Formats: sequence, C-alpha cells, structure tokens
Amino acid sequence: SPSTSTSSSSSSSSDVSVPSFLRPSDTFLRRHIGPDGTEVADMLKVLGVSSIEELIEQTVPASIRRKDKLNLHEATQSETVMSTLLDKIARQNVVHKSFIGMGYHHNILPPVIKRCLVTNPTWYTAYTPYQAEISQGRLESLLNYQTMVVELTGMEIANASLLDEATAGAEAMTMVFRSTGAKPTKNVFLVSDRTHPQIIEVMKTRAEPIGMKLIVGDHHDFNFSKQSVCGALVQYPDTTGTLEDFRGVADALHAHGAQLVVSSDPLALTLATPPGEFGADVVFGTTQRFGVPMGFGGPHAAFFATRKENMRRMPGRIIGISIDERGDRALRMALQTREQHIRKDKATSNVCTSQALLANIAAMYAIYHGPEGLKDIARRVHGLAQRFQRGIESMGYTTINGENFFDTLTVDIAPVSTDVMVEIMRSRQMNIRSMGPTMVGVAFDETHTVADVDTLLEGFALARYGQPVKVDPSELSKNVTGEMPAAFARKSSFMTQQIFNLIQTETEMMRYMKYLENKDLALNTSMISLGSCTMKLNPASSMEPILWNEFANMHPFSPPEQTKGYRQMIFELSKYLCTITGFDAVSLQPNSGATGEYTGLLAIRKYQESIGEGHRDVCIIPKSAHGTNPASAVMAGMRIKAIDSDKQGNVDVAQLEAVAKEHSEDLSALMVTYPSTHGVFEEEIVRICQIVHDNGGQVYMDGANMNAQLGLTSPGIIGADVCHLNLHKTFAIPHGGGGPGVGPIGVRKHLAPFLPGHCIVPVGTVERGPQVTGAPWGSAMILPISWMFIAMLGAQGLKASAEMAILNANYMMTRLKPHFNIKFAGAKGRCAHEFILDVEPFKKSCGIVEEDVAKRLMDYGFHAPTMSWPVPSALMIEPTESENQAELDRFCDAMIMIREEIGKIESGEWPQDNNPIKNAPHTQKEVCSSDWNRPYSREVGAFPAPWVHMRGKFWPTVGRVNNPFGEKNLVCSCGDVSDYSN
Amino acid sequence: SPSTSTSSSSSSSSDVSVPSFLRPSDTFLRRHIGPDGTEVADMLKVLGVSSIEELIEQTVPASIRRKDKLNLHEATQSETVMSTLLDKIARQNVVHKSFIGMGYHHNILPPVIKRCLVTNPTWYTAYTPYQAEISQGRLESLLNYQTMVVELTGMEIANASLLDEATAGAEAMTMVFRSTGAKPTKNVFLVSDRTHPQIIEVMKTRAEPIGMKLIVGDHHDFNFSKQSVCGALVQYPDTTGTLEDFRGVADALHAHGAQLVVSSDPLALTLATPPGEFGADVVFGTTQRFGVPMGFGGPHAAFFATRKENMRRMPGRIIGISIDERGDRALRMALQTREQHIRKDKATSNVCTSQALLANIAAMYAIYHGPEGLKDIARRVHGLAQRFQRGIESMGYTTINGENFFDTLTVDIAPVSTDVMVEIMRSRQMNIRSMGPTMVGVAFDETHTVADVDTLLEGFALARYGQPVKVDPSELSKNVTGEMPAAFARKSSFMTQQIFNLIQTETEMMRYMKYLENKDLALNTSMISLGSCTMKLNPASSMEPILWNEFANMHPFSPPEQTKGYRQMIFELSKYLCTITGFDAVSLQPNSGATGEYTGLLAIRKYQESIGEGHRDVCIIPKSAHGTNPASAVMAGMRIKAIDSDKQGNVDVAQLEAVAKEHSEDLSALMVTYPSTHGVFEEEIVRICQIVHDNGGQVYMDGANMNAQLGLTSPGIIGADVCHLNLHKTFAIPHGGGGPGVGPIGVRKHLAPFLPGHCIVPVGTVERGPQVTGAPWGSAMILPISWMFIAMLGAQGLKASAEMAILNANYMMTRLKPHFNIKFAGAKGRCAHEFILDVEPFKKSCGIVEEDVAKRLMDYGFHAPTMSWPVPSALMIEPTESENQAELDRFCDAMIMIREEIGKIESGEWPQDNNPIKNAPHTQKEVCSSDWNRPYSREVGAFPAPWVHMRGKFWPTVGRVNNPFGEKNLVCSCGDVSDYSN
Repeated sequence: SPSTSTSSSSSSSSDVSVPSFLRPSDTFLRRHIGPDGTEVADMLKVLGVSSIEELIEQTVPASIRRKDKLNLHEATQSETVMSTLLDKIARQNVVHKSFIGMGYHHNILPPVIKRCLVTNPTWYTAYTPYQAEISQGRLESLLNYQTMVVELTGMEIANASLLDEATAGAEAMTMVFRSTGAKPTKNVFLVSDRTHPQIIEVMKTRAEPIGMKLIVGDHHDFNFSKQSVCGALVQYPDTTGTLEDFRGVADALHAHGAQLVVSSDPLALTLATPPGEFGADVVFGTTQRFGVPMGFGGPHAAFFATRKENMRRMPGRIIGISIDERGDRALRMALQTREQHIRKDKATSNVCTSQALLANIAAMYAIYHGPEGLKDIARRVHGLAQRFQRGIESMGYTTINGENFFDTLTVDIAPVSTDVMVEIMRSRQMNIRSMGPTMVGVAFDETHTVADVDTLLEGFALARYGQPVKVDPSELSKNVTGEMPAAFARKSSFMTQQIFNLIQTETEMMRYMKYLENKDLALNTSMISLGSCTMKLNPASSMEPILWNEFANMHPFSPPEQTKGYRQMIFELSKYLCTITGFDAVSLQPNSGATGEYTGLLAIRKYQESIGEGHRDVCIIPKSAHGTNPASAVMAGMRIKAIDSDKQGNVDVAQLEAVAKEHSEDLSALMVTYPSTHGVFEEEIVRICQIVHDNGGQVYMDGANMNAQLGLTSPGIIGADVCHLNLHKTFAIPHGGGGPGVGPIGVRKHLAPFLPGHCIVPVGTVERGPQVTGAPWGSAMILPISWMFIAMLGAQGLKASAEMAILNANYMMTRLKPHFNIKFAGAKGRCAHEFILDVEPFKKSCGIVEEDVAKRLMDYGFHAPTMSWPVPSALMIEPTESENQAELDRFCDAMIMIREEIGKIESGEWPQDNNPIKNAPHTQKEVCSSDWNRPYSREVGAFPAPWVHMRGKFWPTVGRVNNPFGEKNLVCSCGDVSDYSN
Repeated sequence: SPSTSTSSSSSSSSDVSVPSFLRPSDTFLRRHIGPDGTEVADMLKVLGVSSIEELIEQTVPASIRRKDKLNLHEATQSETVMSTLLDKIARQNVVHKSFIGMGYHHNILPPVIKRCLVTNPTWYTAYTPYQAEISQGRLESLLNYQTMVVELTGMEIANASLLDEATAGAEAMTMVFRSTGAKPTKNVFLVSDRTHPQIIEVMKTRAEPIGMKLIVGDHHDFNFSKQSVCGALVQYPDTTGTLEDFRGVADALHAHGAQLVVSSDPLALTLATPPGEFGADVVFGTTQRFGVPMGFGGPHAAFFATRKENMRRMPGRIIGISIDERGDRALRMALQTREQHIRKDKATSNVCTSQALLANIAAMYAIYHGPEGLKDIARRVHGLAQRFQRGIESMGYTTINGENFFDTLTVDIAPVSTDVMVEIMRSRQMNIRSMGPTMVGVAFDETHTVADVDTLLEGFALARYGQPVKVDPSELSKNVTGEMPAAFARKSSFMTQQIFNLIQTETEMMRYMKYLENKDLALNTSMISLGSCTMKLNPASSMEPILWNEFANMHPFSPPEQTKGYRQMIFELSKYLCTITGFDAVSLQPNSGATGEYTGLLAIRKYQESIGEGHRDVCIIPKSAHGTNPASAVMAGMRIKAIDSDKQGNVDVAQLEAVAKEHSEDLSALMVTYPSTHGVFEEEIVRICQIVHDNGGQVYMDGANMNAQLGLTSPGIIGADVCHLNLHKTFAIPHGGGGPGVGPIGVRKHLAPFLPGHCIVPVGTVERGPQVTGAPWGSAMILPISWMFIAMLGAQGLKASAEMAILNANYMMTRLKPHFNIKFAGAKGRCAHEFILDVEPFKKSCGIVEEDVAKRLMDYGFHAPTMSWPVPSALMIEPTESENQAELDRFCDAMIMIREEIGKIESGEWPQDNNPIKNAPHTQKEVCSSDWNRPYSREVGAFPAPWVHMRGKFWPTVGRVNNPFGEKNLVCSCGDVSDYSN
C-alpha cells in the first residue's frame, strides 16, 4: 500500500533544529480562518468566556469530547509545499489518449470558458439558486442547458441535470415505474444488454430494494408486449457503437401503457434522428463531452428529458420562467414542492442537487459552437471513425456495426487476441476498450486527429501482419463523408433559438459570461450564511489541481498502472477521512450527500443480510431530519418511523427508546444528524446510539454538520456505525452554484465489505457492496480539493476550523439575542456551528414572514440564511470559520436594522402591505424610475446601510419572483430572443 | 538555428488527401473576427462595395499593396494544436532553482491573486485609466502601490511604476540631471560599480546622447564634493549583497546641490533603514519579488520614489486623489500635463505607460501579507542567508559581506574555481551567480527552504573536500536571528494604513479584488474603441502559456542550455515579425512602444556613426505624430524639425521636401506613422520615404497603426528602414489596465548590427547596439501571447484581421457620417482602421466639448474613444477586427442618440449648463437619490438606451472627476481608512 506522503514532509518542517521563523511562511490556516487574534479576543469577551477551550467545554458534551489529537500531521502546512507534493502524486498518473468511450470522452474545453467560468469564483462559489432574485445569471445558463437538451433529444422538457449518466438511468427507470402506477403487477423493466455496463449496474442497485424486476437482456429477443412490463431502456448508439431503429420497441411498449427510455449521446444527436422523434418517453445521457474533462469519472452533468405528462414526476431540479412582482421576466427553480425536503418519505427520489457548474460548462460549450459548430464536430468525429473503419477493413478486420454507427466501432480482431492488441496500443500511449477475448472497442472524440487514426491503423496492422503496413490513402477516404446513413440522419433543425446562434466569437462569449456573472451573488461578494450548507472558503490553491492534465484528462476505466497518482491521492484522502471520523473504511464513490445516505443504508442492509438479519427494515428518523434522510431510506426499501423532537429541539429520547424497543425485532437503523439539525450538540447522543444498538439496529449519522466536529469529537467516538460526509460543505469543495457535491461514507469495520464495488474497476480489497454511481470513485476529479484542504490544515488546523466555526456562530447568536428570539441552544446556552432565529412573532405582529426578511437582506447586500428549515418561520444561520468579525458584524447589523424596520411596521409608521421589507428586494429599474411612489425613500429602499454604497451595491436583477405564476405557467426552455442581444 | 516548428505542423493539417472536415475544428480565426459572414455581407452593402477586395482597393494605395501572400503557414490554426506545440517548445526550458538574484527572484504569487486578478479579464483587458470614472478599481490599487512604495522607501511621493529597474535607474539619473539644472557644467553622474551591471549598462545608453558624463566607479574613492557632479547612484543592498551607510555620501552631494539616488530592494526595506531616512533624493528598484514571476526578465513593475520638490519632474504616471462633481473622493491620473503627448519635444522622458498589471499584483501581495507578513518573509530570507553563511564559514569559505547583508552573499571560494562550483550546483538543479574566477554570489528568496540551504552546503562541501561533509546542525543555528545588524535595523513603522492591515484572509482578499473589479469597465463589458490603441481580443489560449512553469519561473540570466525553449520561441516570433514587416531583423528587447522608438533612433544614429555620418542629428517629425516621437528623438540626442499636415491630414510633402533638402547634410531621420495618425493610408508615402533617403536620412516608421497593414502592405514594402511594433496593440498582448506593453523593432539589414545587445547574455549573432532594458529580451514572459496569436492566425488570418479592422472602421464611419463631421479620409473616401469624428461644431452651437461626449458615453455603457488626439475637439474611433456588427451598431446608436441629445441643447430644450451630457456620467448615488432636480428624468440620465437595462447597467462609481482640484491639492497616497472596511 502506498505511503502517506504528507507525514514524511511534515516531519522535515517540524525538525526541532530549525527555528520556526525559517519554515515556509505561506501556511494556509491563517488565510482560511476569518477572525485574527484581536478579533477572537474581542469575540470571546462578548461571549463572556476567557478562551476558546472554555467555549468548547460549554458547547461539546464532555462525554464525547475528543481527548487525544487527530492522528494527522500536526502543524498547518505551506500551500506551496502541499501543492508541490500533490503535483508529485499527480505525476504518477500516465495520461494516454483514450479511445475507450463508454460515456467518457476527451474534448476541448474552450479556453475562454475555462478562464471566465470554470476558474471564476462567482460561478463556482455560488450556492444553489434558491434565492432567485440574486441568481438570475446561473438560472439563465441552466435554462439554456435545459433548452439545449430538449432540442438535442427532441423531447418536450428537461431538467437542469442529474448526478451522472448511470444514476440518471436509474432515475429514468424508477420514474417510468411510478408513471405506470408503481404496481407489483407491472414491475418488469428490461435494460438492453447493449447498454454501458456501469449504467446497468447502478440500475440493478436501485431496482432491488423497491421491488422492481430488472431484466438485463437482448432487446431483440424480449417480448415488450407483456402487461407486466412497465418499461425498457435501450441505448442509441449502443455500447458497441451501433445505431438501431427503436420505433417498433416504442410502439410495442406504448400499446400497453409502458414506456421507452433511451440512453443517448448529445453529440450523436446533432446528426442522428433524435429519440423524441421515434417514440422515446425518457431520454438521458451525459453532457460530459460538451467541454467537461473526464476527470477519472466525474463530476459530469447527466441530462434527462421527457414528455410533458411526466413533468411533475421528473427527478432533479427544473428551472422555469416566471415573472417578478412588476411583471418582468424572472427565472426560478420550479416545482420545488416535488423536492425531497418537502416530500420526505413520500419522495420518490433522493436527488436534491444538480451538477450546475458542469451543466453550465456544457451549455456555454453549446452556445459557443452553436448548432452548426456542434454538427461540424460531430461530422469530424464520425468521419474519423469512418476513416478508421475503412482502414481496418482493408486489413481484413470486421466491425459489427456496418454503416450504422456514430463515433464508436466494435472490432472483431480474431485471430489477434485482445490482450495483444491492447498492449500494442498502450505502447503508443493509446487506450482502447477490451470487449472480449478477440473483440475491442474504439471510440473517437473531438480531440482525435487524422494522425491518431494513422497511429491506430499502424497498431492494427502490426497486430495482424507482425509489421507495419501502410494503407493506401485513397482507401481511407472512400465514402468518408462524416454524414450519418440516411436511415438515421437527423432531418429536424435544433437549437434555433437566438442564444445558440448569437455568440460565436471569443469576445462575445467573454461578455456573455460576464453579463451573467454580474447577476449573481456568490462568496466573493459577501457571506452566505446558509445553515447546514457550510459555505466556507474554497481556497484557490485547492482548486488549481483539478485542471492539471494528470487529473483532468484521465478516463475512469484506465488501467491501474496508469492511475497510480489518482489511487494514491484517493488512498490518502480516505485515510484522512477515517482519522477524522474515527471509522475504519471510507468509500468515495457517492457523488452527492444524498447518495451517501443511500449508500450507507444499503451497506447496513447488506451487512444485516450477511448476518441473517435481512428482515430488519425499520428506519427511525427524527422529524427534524434532512428531507433526504427519509427519501434515501425509502429507496433502500425501508419502513420509516418518525419520532419527535422535544421542546429544546433534541431527539425525544423516551419516544426513541419506546419505538426502538417496539421494533427490536425489525429495527434496521436510526438516522441522526449531529450536531442536531437544530444546531445543538445534544447531550444524549451517546445514549441514543446505545439504545439503537441495544435493539439490534445500526446508527447512521448524517454528516451535514461535520464541520462542528472536526478534531473535537467524531462519529466514531459518539458511537455511530456509518456516516456520510459532504466534501462540498466540510472539506471545501465549492457548491458550484448548485453542484457538484461529493458524499463519501465512512463505516466501522463490520460494514466495510458492503461499501460500493464497481463492475469494471476493482476499487479496493474488500468492497463488494452495490455500485451507486457510474465511475469507480464517483466525482474523482474534485477529490484533490479536499485532499489539499485537509493536507494544508493538518490536525491543528482542522480543529481550529471547528472551533472558529463554533465561535463565529455563538458570537452572532449573542449579538442577535437582544433583538430576536433564538430557538434552541445546548445545555449551557451555546449553539454549535449554527443557530436558528425565530421570525414567527413578526407574522402575528405585522405580517412579516421569513421570506420577507430573506428578500430584504438582499437590499443590504446579503444572501439569506436557510429559510424555514428545520423549523418553519425561522432562519438558520451558519457563518463558518472563514468569515471574520467585521463581516459577521455587518450581517448582524443588517439583521438588527431589519428588526428596527419591522418595528416601524409594528408601530404603524409603515403600512403592512407597502414597506421596504414586503417590497424587497428593490431593483435598479424600480429605484431609478421616475415614478417612485413608496411611502419611504429610495435610499431607505435600496441603500439602507452605509456600506451598501461604500462596498458597492449588489443589485438583484429582478424583483421578488412570483412563484405561483411560475407554477401555473410552467415554461422551462428559453425563448427565441435573448436579452443579451439587445 | 532552430527550425520553425509551425511550418512543419501546418503542412500535415493541409495534407490534400485529408478532407477539410476532418481537420481540427477549433480554429482561431472565426473566434477572433467579430462579424460573421452575414454581417460582413450586410456591412459591405452599407459601404456600397461588392467585396472586401474592393474595399481594400479603395483604401490601400496600389503602389504599396502587397502582391504576394505573407510567407507564413497558410491556414488558420487550431488553438489546441498551437498550444500543444508551444508546450513542446516550452519544455525545452529547464527550470532550476535560482540563487542568482540581481533583481530577479522566485516568489510565491498567492493563488487567490493569480486567480482573481492575473487571469481575470477585467484586470488585464482594461485600458489605461484615462477615463477615471470607470477606472476607480485599478486607480485605487495603483494608489495602494504608490503608498506601499512611499512607506517602504521612507520617501514622500512615488509614481505608479516604471518599465523595469534598469530604465528606472536611467530615469532617476536624468531626473537628477534636470533637477540640478541640466547644465553642461554639472553633468557628471557617478554610478557605483557595486550596482547591478544591467542597470549600469542601461544608464550608459541613456547618458550619452543627452550629454551627461557617466562615471562608473567605486563610490569609496569618488570625490562627491566636486561642483560638476549632479548626482550619484548607489545600491542598498549592493549587487554583492552588502549594506552600507550612505549618510556621508548624501551629505557630500547635498552640500553643493547634487542628489543621491538609491537603488534598493522592497523586501530588504521591511527590515533595513529606508533610504528616505538617510538622505536619498530618489529611491528606485523592482517590485518583481512581490508576487510577480521572473518570466525570463519581465514584465515587472519598477518603483520610483522621491521627495515632494521633485514631484513635477518625476517620470511616469502618478495617481492622485481628487473629488468628483458632488465632492466625493475620486481618483485620477494626476499631472498629465507633464506627459509626453503634451510636452512633445519639451518632454524629458518618453515614458508614457506604467506596468499597471504588475504593480497591481505587487500591491495586492503587500496587502495580503501586510507589514508583519512582509517582515516575516524578509526574516526568513535573511535567516536562510545567515544559515548558509554559518555553514560555509564552518568550511573555511569567506564572504565579503560580514554581517551587513540581507539576502545575498558574495563568497570567495578560492582555491575552488567558479566554473567547478557553478557546475556542481547545476547538477543539483540550482543556479548561482558567477562573479569572477573564484567568486560566486548566492541570493535567497521566499521560495527557498532550509532543505535548499542543506543542498547548497552539500555542494560547497563537495567542492572543498571532494566529498560530502555534513555541517554540525548547532553550527547552522548560531546567531541565526533573521534580524538585521543594529546599525541597519529599521526602527520606523510602515504601511500602517488600514488597507495594509485589513485583508489577510483569502475570503477577504477575494472580495476586495472583486469589489475593485466591479468598478472598472474592461473589454469583457463592451467595446473600447480607442483610436491608435487597437483594443482587440486578448485570447485566453494566448494568455495561458505565460503562467506555465517553464516560462514563468526562468531567471533572465540563466545559462543558454537551460533556456532553449525561450530562445526557440523568441527566434520564431522574430521570424514571424520579420515576415510581417518585410524587414531583416527584429529586437524584442524594448519593453514599451516608446522604448522601441528610442531604440530604433539609436540604431539609426549608431549606423550613421559607423559610416562616418555621426554628425547627422536632425529628425523630421510631422506635428500630428504621437507625442512620444519627439520625446524619443530628444532622448536620442536629435534636433527636431516639425512639419505640418495639409488640410486632408496628410504630411505636407512639399514642406517635407524643402526641410529635407535644407538639412541634406545633417538629416538623420524622418519619423512617420502609417497609416497616418489621422487614420488614412496616405498615397504619397513611397515618395515621402524616397525624399528622406535622397537626402541621406533614414525612415523611422511608428508602428502604432500596424494593425491596418497586416498582410496588406508592410514597412518594408513602403520603404521604411526601421519600425517599432506594439505587441500590446497589434499582436494581442493585453493592455493590463495601463501596462505591460512590448515594443520590438524591426530593421533592414544595414541596421541589424545596431540592435540592442546585452551586457550579460548575448542576444544574437550581430547585435552590438546599446542596451535599453535590464533583461536581454525585455518582457520575455509575455512574448508567448504574440507567438500564439500569430501562430493561430497564420498568413490568411493576419490578413483577414487587417481587412476586418478596416471594414469595421469604414462601416462605423459610414453609419456616423450623416450625423457627425468626419475629419479625414483617403483619396477614395475611405478611412484605414480608425477615423476621426469632429465635435468642434457643438462647442459653438451649445457648449458641448469632446469630454462631455466621452463622459456621456459612460451612461450608455461605453468607454470613450481617444479624445483630442491627434486633433483637438475630436474623437478618434478604432473598433478593431474583434467587434461584431451588433456591437458596432450599439456604439453607433449611442453616438447618434447623443447627437440627438445635443440637438435638444442646441434647440434650447435643455439648458446648456444642466443637461444629461454636461452632467454625465450619472452615478448610482445621484440617480437613486430622493432629491433629483435635473430638468430631465432619471431614466434619461442613466438609462438612455434600451440595452442599458437589458445588458446590465455599468455604473461609473464616481461622478465627473474634478481635475483642477486634484492638481491643486495633490495627494498621491491612500489615507488611513479604506472604504472597503465599511
């Protein structure tokens, strides 16, 4: 096993013979932590404690407080040293040209998009666009994405992306199941065996617990007319590269109310008849090849399109067009009532994020190329495949595809063996796909060239003749047209909307991205104090490595000897996470927090099966849990028993004990968040775990609040058996404006064998649990971010982060207490890293609700905290350790000023229906308009605090969005004309 | 000589057997050129011509039109292919750790500054902040820079940076000469021989033509009291690393009105007594080590500080604090009347730019570290040097520095030879400085570590003992304090202003840069149609390579075998430029356009000397020339004869002929811009050249307008002998918000031997002319930008760029003609790539002047064109080829709407002193204020066109800046409190 590289390096810098002032000075901790020494002292004084230690003693129950230090390198580290170290690790990767395909392709990320979007903090540090008024930039981009998907697939509606292609396939399958009634008598679903194996594998995982009967087979032999069949999935072009006409399959399914799901490739669809035109009910796939690096498997945006009648069942986020209160066009996230945090155990999917950043890259790529540019790329790719086919056919090889293919060919190479051929190609720094003893796959992409075809042909000739034989160049051009066979040639136009035909110079592309950027408030403007979302710094030094060639351009199914760097980085990150959680093993496969939950519950179930307790299926979940908890439990085939919180917001332990005892025969697990979703370190947590264990259950810990535990306690110390982590919260992966996320799980030893395996790439020595994402290590490309973050902080820095997060939260709570009702606190009156502020009283006193406060904060230049969760009529504030006292004060001042404004409504100075809070946010259009007729001044409306002018006004670009209008008039594609053209 | 790499690659992609649709699709040309085919067709129609060819025939005189194609690769190229090719070239560089010093040091560019500033188009595509109201962001940053310099040096005022350390030395010398009267009786200037050799060399170049007597010598032996001495330059610490007390020198000089110039190091000054405290009159140096990569020599920002009484003589740009029309604080460029474009032949320096982008990096670096952080870095660096000294002394080596050094030690290594020692260190990937047969220099920097000291000691031991001998670790720590000897220890505090003590977390750093970014309008918002400045696209793919390790981290004096990549790239770029200009040789040393002019004139003079015509010293310059032309000629020791333009704006050929004949015995050169500064391809240019040649002169062509010549004609075809190019105009290097620039010169064969040489690094086979910048190839780091630009465009693309620049300009001229008086045009009524719009009539009709129109354009979201140059009361508009028709139309629409507004003033609808044009630009503060009392609406004021709302309003952050107030109340450092803190 590889050695942990950081330990050796840190030993040299902590060499006692070297005075500390000679050590590297670019240490990360002081750049990461907001408050400096003076501020900390002042804040402690405000709290009335003498030290951080005293505060922590008042906050973290003694019973679970970590006694020892984290077993990581001690000192905080130099950013440069750690970056250099990671570079060395990365260079152990060997990047070959990939011809493997299978949903992962090299491509060209246009440099202007890389520079102005991918590496631009406004785009990647933004939060999910729940606050629509200050998110119109990425909402517009995601709407472009949806429109692009609709246009390419020929479907009616699309969502704003899903986690990856494989989970999108599973989502399609379960949606079809529900659409057709979710009946045990109509639970058969066929997936064609010519589908990418990783998609099939994830579908298998998903089908089993919910009682679907998944059949993997040859769709040519399958009887689609059986009543029990609810749907089928076919791939177009399929995993061998072949295009097939599925009209007959569609008709057969539709005849008895079943549905056809088609997995497809967006680039192929620029030339081939779209599935929407041959009867598909759902079309999904990946937009990775639209500018997103392979990154060893992810993150990539999967697309998902369907017919209008499925709209309300469609998983994922949907961006819709509505109007604001003045009637101007305004974008928003639509159909949010379908979301898991609202539907909980009625939810039908636990997807609660998208791959916003990746979808935005793909959308910009599509805009930059436009429909004609995309077709040019597709013709090139297809033409290279044709040329390659001509070449190998001239040597006597045969492909199974005939003329009906796009970019991929499956070649029968007998009598040459696949091993020999693969080896010949590897010696030319090329990877091809092994598909059987004498069968290989070769897939072409945008980066490949005629010279690459030459090299491939050279290899194929060598394999056949034992020596290089040059193909007659005229052979190679014969009927190489780049055009699809007539039977599959797309006749319909697509992406005719102005936005896809407007911006095809770099200058305009740069301006369009800047234009959208200016509409969005992200972490580079002001704090985003979203409770439970931990919007901390995403350090630039952590972000840089993900675009290094060795990390970015690796196919996920590359052979192990080419991926040593990735494997070492992943090994080390896993070890870090084990140390931090106190667990024995970690899986990095889950590509979102919710997937982590689901994976953890599956591990519990598989473990219980393995010890003959497979009947245990009850999952206890506090009502205050994240909505994804029950949704994940349902997906894992569990029955949910909800329990209450007591008045202090803690788990009602008596009730828990009663329910656990009642179900001691069939109790599978408890799901519990710690510190609680109310922002409190519950004193009883150890007893809670004990009760569950005593009744035969396992404790699943939701790790959303792990930021408060770092170095102070751990799920292992507390007594949990499994816990997921949100690398995008606690470990500095940016939120990307609504994804990506990474949700690894840590487990105790007994659960380790049930961590996810992978159908193609062995991911470890014991893992044999069900596969949950397409790629072996999920969103591997962004794991270096967390590696860097942990490596740069070390034991001391991680602990300091938790301490400062707790200090910051308690400081804000203390400052706001005289003005607001604070909902919960721990035994000694302290909150953890977040706290809940009650705004219910104002509803009665003057009609002000939490949304009003949230929108009013925009006028002050701030993003709202979490609204109405986990308790209604409240705001949950989480400052994180990265904000300094000045920023906390600015936010507190804004809240206090808003409280004063509420007072003016309460006193009748302002009418309840026409005041700065109800009318918030105020737009430029309104404030700069001649006809201002509010009962308060423009300045009070839009410049309520001195810093708004001084620091630069951030203008919401639309007024308060009309949600009901948007729900009633659902429009989810962009129109023919773009604002930008004006 | 290295082969031209692009030619071979292009041949493969133009292989006839490969159909064109299989070639790489990411070609650059279509991304670079604004108008697409439809737009071009429409624009040609508006012009009434049937083709581009017809337009060019009407524009470029037949006599000079290029008949053949440029001898470059033909097809436009793939961005990826060219980037990959350049990467291969770069990898021929071998990056060693440098301990050479001499003003060039490794350092750590904080990743957050790299990401949010260096690679951010808002910062680098911005123009010089002449339009102060939309430039407050970089003005504030440059003010921070000036303040930092004042604080570090202990001086009273500083400018916003100069081109490089060596030219700053020359500027200091000439300023002192002027300050002391510029008398032939007081023209002796001593430069200490312990100054970096490249500084001395550039000073020599500058001193000679203006009649100064420069003495290079030991300042210990020099008699400073002589009346003929006007000043002296000493280095602190000097080039050997030693610190010396110069109080005595200062006193001796001051006693008879002479001045002391000190070259210094900003990092050393955090620990050492600043020169301002021991009597320096000027302090200069380089801020390269504050976050700017070495980049093989530049660009770097040189600093320059002096006493208040020298303020009006100080070269370079100065940012000052003034107020806007409402009395709010507003920054601006101060003392512009000192500038060359105003003083022309009275100018005392030709410096007309700064290194804004590099100065901004340095300022942000200083802010991020703060005074304490900078001291920590300085202590580390000094401590490492101390530790190294202890180590080698324990081996019996001696240093010449005693205890009085900062980061650099000069070691007497006898009997070891320098060659042996240098070789030993190179085998350890380390470069040290060779200072004599048995003398080496070792300089430490921020990136070096204790491990590096160990490796150095290992090498020194090996050299001495022939085997590795380990030094006792306790030896190495003895008296290693990081503190300066008491005699030199700085006692004064510095950088106490809030801005340097406010922003020390990455989160806040990111926000501060975004806060400033939001104040500035750059190319990513809208077109910047600055006549003569060619604000075209700066492609991201061209920008990427400059930060590659192989380019960024190379010391300029690294040995040739380590710099093969740089040399090949430079060779190829030179060849490209020769082809484009039709010349035989190119020098890339001049690091600004003005330096290029000066260098070209020096080459002419040296050539004339070489053929016994050294007496020729008359330079004919048309009055319409760039102001730097006469300034450069004066610096080259020439006498200027100005000639007029005729009514069409062309050179008065009769007058030229008369003057030339009159001076046929002493005519040295003509300086002429082509196309003319009036934006016209003068028909008589060939005859003009002939007249000059016939009278024994040389033709210097100012290449500012080269963008109109690309592939259509060339200075060589026209008959010029030398021409400078502005790589930052024609060849896509960004303007950086006011620098960097690169001004290479191309020459005919007879002038080639007189291109600049270099005192340390031979730059070519024939070059033996005077050195003009510190580094052998000037600002080498940014040359890859132009290499990429030319390589990606090829012959066809370069020609297309010129054609489209001409089309765009003529289209705008045609659209605006019905509304405005157009000043000049060519024989057939066409302009070149720019045109001049006369606004003089409005002054008479209603009091509107060009500045009013410029400021009003801001309300429409545009940067103004060039104002009042080359003719007063006019605007010169240059759209460049990168703008599409839609953007041109938007700008024309704005101009036409402004014309309509002028009509309303003319008609009396609006008062002359209170109308939207006079009151422009309108600020947010004003427009959102309750007390609006203008005789027009807020909408008319700030949202005069529909696109202003639709495309996102760009708000000037201050109202019209009060220039006279700023001149009267000159404040050039930032105050104690920052707006950002609020």
